[in-house]
Amino acid sequence: MYERPTKVCLVWGAAEGDSELTAFDNALLKAGIGHLNLIAVTSIFPEGAALSSLPDIPTGTLTPTVYAKMVSETPGESISACIGVGVTPKGGVLMEAHGPWSAEEIEGRVRRMVEEGMRTRGLEPYELHFATAEHVVEKIGSAVAAAVLWRG
Amino acid sequence: MYERPTKVCLVWGAAEGDSELTAFDNALLKAGIGHLNLIAVTSIFPEGAALSSLPDIPTGTLTPTVYAKMVSETPGESISACIGVGVTPKGGVLMEAHGPWSAEEIEGRVRRMVEEGMRTRGLEPYELHFATAEHVVEKIGSAVAAAVLWRG
Amino acid sequence: MYERPTKVCLVWGAAEGDSELTAFDNALLKAGIGHLNLIAVTSIFPEGAALSSLPDIPTGTLTPTVYAKMVSETPGESISACIGVGVTPKGGVLMEAHGPWSAEEIEGRVRRMVEEGMRTRGLEPYELHFATAEHVVEKIGSAVAAAVLWRG
Repeated sequence: MYERPTKVCLVWGAAEGDSELTAFDNALLKAGIGHLNLIAVTSIFPEGAALSSLPDIPTGTLTPTVYAKMVSETPGESISACIGVGVTPKGGVLMEAHGPWSAEEIEGRVRRMVEEGMRTRGLEPYELHFATAEHVVEKIGSAVAAAVLWRG
Repeated sequence: MYERPTKVCLVWGAAEGDSELTAFDNALLKAGIGHLNLIAVTSIFPEGAALSSLPDIPTGTLTPTVYAKMVSETPGESISACIGVGVTPKGGVLMEAHGPWSAEEIEGRVRRMVEEGMRTRGLEPYELHFATAEHVVEKIGSAVAAAVLWRG
Repeated sequence: MYERPTKVCLVWGAAEGDSELTAFDNALLKAGIGHLNLIAVTSIFPEGAALSSLPDIPTGTLTPTVYAKMVSETPGESISACIGVGVTPKGGVLMEAHGPWSAEEIEGRVRRMVEEGMRTRGLEPYELHFATAEHVVEKIGSAVAAAVLWRG
């Protein structure tokens, strides 16, 4: 708590499960973060932070994460979850969406939210990155996208 | 984590946005906390803590916060968000509400919740403070009230 | 933040209140955690951690907790909230459910989720523990089950 993360790690995954909660759990495992105790945070890319691949984090570590979570019990439905990040050396924003949409459609939505958030803060121009998971539900499915806020 | 905050900073704001998430983001900016990574917490005013104005916190800092968030896409609707805090030297409680109500109505609701929480804990008499944001929706609007739990 | 809890403390409680939020608050008091600032986390039993009784934690401490929360305004309704934990020396999972169910029914649901989560991770055999709160609503009732993730 009261720390400022220095690394932002984008991950995503999708999976089926026997229940909504275990489908979400399986999607987190696919995303590579199913061994962590995630703490949901709102959505700022810290000043001076950098995008990074996910480090090796011990099982059960309390880990602040911005995540987008979609779960559906409608077989055949296309679902997606997306995190978009606008990056400048002075920081930026992370925006999320999840819903019954294609990857292309959800990235369009998130792109517009990042644009608004960066413009409002006077952070232009900026780099834009996405983490997007797309999934066609078989029985009970989940799509997850996340930005792990790491340090060090 | 595992720390005990020593300052409680009440803030509030309201704004429009192009989406629900960016309206919320803009309301956080109006409240002065749109540069922070907020972590939602339940609702205790720590023993020995004091109300304080918001300190200068670096962009992206992981910041525990009790917040009330209202978003509406109904033009003309009056919305509000309120945090009420009952304070004694032995601590107190923070209660929240948000909905399609006036500031006066929401503060009445929150007042009754604070009363119940303080009475149950035997913390009477107490000081009562509110942070309340009220907004009439133009297109997509958000009202936010928050208690930042700071330290030091 | 970024810590790995070493103790997992299962608690539960149920209560009535004058509003949904204060019923929840009263259920937290019954569970013995109504004096803490809870931070919700997802659901991993850390490697090397142990089940433990709840230590004496100062009022207002920021405390990571997996919790299941049920609130109902339907007099006569039976409600419950349950946390199930699968434990091995290499860690495990915590699963939650809440709904208009009996203790027996909700533990069946949670048992199946724990089984799936442990099997997926190759963590078999394992010890299974539950924290379950059951309540018949009088006016506005809440049932809460929680796993406090403590350290030291």
